[in-house]
Amino acid sequence: MEFDPKSLTYNEAGLMPAIAQDSESGEVLMMAWMNAEAVAKTLETKRVTYWSRSRQSFWIKGETSGHTQELVDFRYDCDQDCILVLIKQVGAACHTNRRTCFYTAVRDGQTVELMKPMDE
Amino acid sequence: MEFDPKSLTYNEAGLMPAIAQDSESGEVLMMAWMNAEAVAKTLETKRVTYWSRSRQSFWIKGETSGHTQELVDFRYDCDQDCILVLIKQVGAACHTNRRTCFYTAVRDGQTVELMKPMDE
Repeated sequence: MEFDPKSLTYNEAGLMPAIAQDSESGEVLMMAWMNAEAVAKTLETKRVTYWSRSRQSFWIKGETSGHTQELVDFRYDCDQDCILVLIKQVGAACHTNRRTCFYTAVRDGQTVELMKPMDE
Repeated sequence: MEFDPKSLTYNEAGLMPAIAQDSESGEVLMMAWMNAEAVAKTLETKRVTYWSRSRQSFWIKGETSGHTQELVDFRYDCDQDCILVLIKQVGAACHTNRRTCFYTAVRDGQTVELMKPMDE
């Protein structure tokens, strides 16, 4: 069936969570938001493009940092309200220069930092 | 540092996206929502507990279906506004009886069903 980005179920702000997963290691790298146009741009360009809620503009991941995300596979869930992009990540996905944004764990009631920022 | 579920950044409805990932295969299984109390329950009981927005009640995953999620590791992201739970999933995570909710891909502009429901 032909895919129409507008057919997905966006929230009241026209956005949907998009999970980015490393296509090789399986590591979950980050979660950000897409609107229908960001979905279309991501599929067209194969460069993962989010919608920045703080800047209210498209956010082509890595455009300034060089830490780009190349689309390998685009998936969405049963409720059509969450996206999963499998990607090739260059460098760090996180703005703290860590590979993944999910570097904090809670173990035995304590927060644990799982990794340090990458060397530049 | 001691972890306080209330210290995370919830949205205006008091909720945050929680991504469930198979702790062994790395497969991303589903995304649902947690409030601070669901986070506390998940950590206390090791049974992954979401907040059902449609039912407006706690949703102990698998309580009716038997498809439980045992918590292996609890993580959150740099902005403290998204949760990643690594879990042991019994059976299907998806209500359609598929292992993962992300069973639809978009390839060359067409939707592709990646897997069928599991046998009961």
